[in-house]
Amino acid sequence: MPTVFNRRLALLKDEMRKRRLDSFLVTKGVNVSYVSGFSGHDAIILVTPGKSFFAADSRYIEEAGDSVKGFEIRQVKRSLYEIIKDIAAKNKLKRLGFESMDLPYEVACRLKGFVAKGVLVPVKGLVEDLRTVKDAGEIALIKRSIRLTKDVFDRTAPFVRPGVSEESVARKIEIDFLASGARPGFDPIVAADANSSKPHAVPTARKISKNSFVMIDIGCMLKKYNSDMTRMITTGKVNGRMKKIYEIVRAAQSMAIAAIRPGEQAARIDAAARGYIQKKGFGRYFGHALGHGVGMEVHEKPTISGVSDCLLRPGMVFTVEPAVYIPKFGGIRIEDMVLVTDTGCEILSR
Amino acid sequence: MPTVFNRRLALLKDEMRKRRLDSFLVTKGVNVSYVSGFSGHDAIILVTPGKSFFAADSRYIEEAGDSVKGFEIRQVKRSLYEIIKDIAAKNKLKRLGFESMDLPYEVACRLKGFVAKGVLVPVKGLVEDLRTVKDAGEIALIKRSIRLTKDVFDRTAPFVRPGVSEESVARKIEIDFLASGARPGFDPIVAADANSSKPHAVPTARKISKNSFVMIDIGCMLKKYNSDMTRMITTGKVNGRMKKIYEIVRAAQSMAIAAIRPGEQAARIDAAARGYIQKKGFGRYFGHALGHGVGMEVHEKPTISGVSDCLLRPGMVFTVEPAVYIPKFGGIRIEDMVLVTDTGCEILSR
Repeated sequence: MPTVFNRRLALLKDEMRKRRLDSFLVTKGVNVSYVSGFSGHDAIILVTPGKSFFAADSRYIEEAGDSVKGFEIRQVKRSLYEIIKDIAAKNKLKRLGFESMDLPYEVACRLKGFVAKGVLVPVKGLVEDLRTVKDAGEIALIKRSIRLTKDVFDRTAPFVRPGVSEESVARKIEIDFLASGARPGFDPIVAADANSSKPHAVPTARKISKNSFVMIDIGCMLKKYNSDMTRMITTGKVNGRMKKIYEIVRAAQSMAIAAIRPGEQAARIDAAARGYIQKKGFGRYFGHALGHGVGMEVHEKPTISGVSDCLLRPGMVFTVEPAVYIPKFGGIRIEDMVLVTDTGCEILSR
Repeated sequence: MPTVFNRRLALLKDEMRKRRLDSFLVTKGVNVSYVSGFSGHDAIILVTPGKSFFAADSRYIEEAGDSVKGFEIRQVKRSLYEIIKDIAAKNKLKRLGFESMDLPYEVACRLKGFVAKGVLVPVKGLVEDLRTVKDAGEIALIKRSIRLTKDVFDRTAPFVRPGVSEESVARKIEIDFLASGARPGFDPIVAADANSSKPHAVPTARKISKNSFVMIDIGCMLKKYNSDMTRMITTGKVNGRMKKIYEIVRAAQSMAIAAIRPGEQAARIDAAARGYIQKKGFGRYFGHALGHGVGMEVHEKPTISGVSDCLLRPGMVFTVEPAVYIPKFGGIRIEDMVLVTDTGCEILSR
């Protein structure tokens, strides 16, 4: 029975054929992990017409031997890339793709010296594209991850009250993730009042006050899979202007979610939310994309924005996070995670 | 009075002059933070003969306005790099250095299209080289970081006993760091017996047993500065072979530390420890470098290895971590952090 990694390698080879590549070098850590199951760092994969090779140095070689199957494992001494010259020559590689959005310029130039002119082919996001459509195992893990994030949020909410600092709420969230066997997927955002006008605010020592509104954007990584969710909490009476903005953002999110179905353009999902926010006069306060894919990375493809050329497919998982940020006053963001299904979408974070 | 960031920018300009660069692009996040004090992500710095520019997108622009001084701040719409074309043309830049070990190949190629042929100059590790010598403020922060790591280790040690899993020890360490206001600088290594033969072992659910030896490699990031320390713990009687190896590794470390002084070659520090381990017959079980710099990154320059061409200078901070790893049996590593002083070194982790 083929393992999930056999299947992924087969899909990778399909994509290589479409691009007329006879070989492909995977260097981005999360992509190496996706293709091979390896959990360490500093390893590369070289897929050739014959074998596929996995290279790591002495620090990771024993672990690779235990966990990586279906690859010929090579231990390197000085550089991961030292294997390329040999393998390229022996296998007479003609078109060797590499991850040009990951590999540093310096390393790519060095690799060029290892092979004949024109052999090295820059490729953008091949494995990232495969990763946009999640398989059943991945969806199950993402659901566990978001469930834990919701649980941690529910346990945190009663703790968000006047006199408590943003930092102490953030720390409580991080500790709760760790105590639950996960880790924070990113630095939690806990931002009260004016601090929330920064989309990626850093929690401060400032105390939350009596009638504060607080943006809480948290997520965890559980068994390699991430979650990401933003909620607004108020500690008292809601400021009238904020309440109005909240309702606009909420309605914009509903419109975007209602538009999600296979075959739809990601750009139109973005437009559904953005158009409404613009109509209400807050367009210039919503500077970022509507959403982003979530999986082995917190931010991955697809990007749900006005310039995206992505068509939605079943199995895609992404955030829908319309927002309005008014400098020196505050911001409202509501962020949920959705899974594209055969007929529409499932909201994972509710 | 010049701030620490004015001083760093002046040092950066000195290095640029040595390399005949009239301008320099900083893209690596930790280098952007080092030069400007910015704490967010996704920002770049462009130093020109006149002004220095700081670019970020809407998510970080308000924070940049608050925290980044001495730079002209530019908000970008689609890409951080969109500012380069304009500024390069207006300032008639002739030799624009970029961080070629950081910038992806794809982005570097795009930048080439923004400027005349030959203007873009790949540069390896300029800011990283500046960062090898720590100033007084950095040394104070590193000392706080390593002190916390020692405290957490001391609180953890009594918890390492038969029946407790590696994972649960690792989790306790992570939670303790967070509760102390820091964060784990890397995934803690807690590896008992045979698992410790992997230099970067992943903690497992296996229970520590009665006469186990356990490798604990931990560190935290506190106010942007890291620490890194490895200790061995035994839960009962020490296996004779392990005891012998431990004494060899310990002696090797003492020899290396005794050799540290300004002007000495890093390669000779490595040789001091490695030579002894080789003499004792365990040379082939010590595969990695003797040490690495620690600062804003857990692993940074200088590398203390046989192929290093670094000369030690006062203010350098690095680890000294000789080790012996015997597959399927176990490993011993002892890791301390040292600061090169005017006359020798100070051991920071004792």
